[in-house]
Amino acid sequence: MAKRKKNPAFSAETIKRLSLYLRNLKVLQERDINVFSSGQISRFLTISPDQFRKDLSYFGGFGKPGVGYPVADLIREIERILGLNRVWKIVLVGAGKLGGALLGFPGFSGLNMRIVAAFDDVPQKAGALQYRIPIHHIRGLEACIKREKIKIAMICTPPEAAQEISDRLVKAGVKAIVNFAPIHLKARKGVFISNIDMACELESLIYFIKTQR
Amino acid sequence: MAKRKKNPAFSAETIKRLSLYLRNLKVLQERDINVFSSGQISRFLTISPDQFRKDLSYFGGFGKPGVGYPVADLIREIERILGLNRVWKIVLVGAGKLGGALLGFPGFSGLNMRIVAAFDDVPQKAGALQYRIPIHHIRGLEACIKREKIKIAMICTPPEAAQEISDRLVKAGVKAIVNFAPIHLKARKGVFISNIDMACELESLIYFIKTQR
Repeated sequence: MAKRKKNPAFSAETIKRLSLYLRNLKVLQERDINVFSSGQISRFLTISPDQFRKDLSYFGGFGKPGVGYPVADLIREIERILGLNRVWKIVLVGAGKLGGALLGFPGFSGLNMRIVAAFDDVPQKAGALQYRIPIHHIRGLEACIKREKIKIAMICTPPEAAQEISDRLVKAGVKAIVNFAPIHLKARKGVFISNIDMACELESLIYFIKTQR
Repeated sequence: MAKRKKNPAFSAETIKRLSLYLRNLKVLQERDINVFSSGQISRFLTISPDQFRKDLSYFGGFGKPGVGYPVADLIREIERILGLNRVWKIVLVGAGKLGGALLGFPGFSGLNMRIVAAFDDVPQKAGALQYRIPIHHIRGLEACIKREKIKIAMICTPPEAAQEISDRLVKAGVKAIVNFAPIHLKARKGVFISNIDMACELESLIYFIKTQR
């Protein structure tokens, strides 16, 4: 993340753990488990019970001593804290191999996120539907973002196009960008950028394996 | 990454940037650009020329003053530094939706990495081929890792299975794990764990958008 609000009480890691708790609580719910103890969730997640209680304590009192945490209530509360009690619309720019795969990624619906449109500069792609998501020519990008009040975008363009696209997105009103292009995007004030670069992760792992021998 | 060797000279971020340079150098090569200056690459990557020169300087002298960096030589050198001058075999555990998508991910071949086998505990999946990669029953995991001398694994299992699978992988000889399961894996000495959790990234972005208003 390129820029984030300073908060003396809790860190961005707390927010990431809340997201982790949420997904695991949903697994418990699917198994008809209605109440659990912090000991149970910590074994399940390999996070200490203290960490779990501390993370929740920033946002209010949850759970009952000697009884435990009600799963459904805690899911609702964490969704409210994270802002997931509504559907967030996303645009995706760059409908190539990776972008195309993301359009078909089944995980977004479980996250209350929906890719509403994709954009590409290849004229032949415009007008098509991929996984029922319309692909438009890139020239319509700003109009769509403004009309749909979209705050989140994913960039899957080649590296040399990513910065210009990022600038256009921000100018049109986007506040958060998940960048899959292998380039460091310049941060802008009030805009959050998350770089997801699997090649970097994998190549770093290989370097460390290699040097360890 | 859970654990990494301490090195006073350069950080894991240097290694990640080398990986980033490498992919962008390949883009230059595809465009028949044979020599470039640090100014050019830094504009292209939005990284300062000083950072670029500093990152390379840890590994030797590259480029000629007044002439620039030869693209092909630098690609070869960075590949050698990172250990990418050979193909690395990978096993994938958990051939569900995300695992299945990764089996078809076209990006690995460009990284000199190859998923050689996938494993799943659903008996019906065993014996099938997905994107020409064989899917085996999980009971064959250790034998395959030892036979093929595999050092890298990807975990795409449900969260509650991930720690046990990780332990089995490490015991069989795996040295690096890319974990896509939404759980914090316990680190083991000499084993590198990279957690890739897109849901956490996205949900954190939403939290920060929400609290900014």
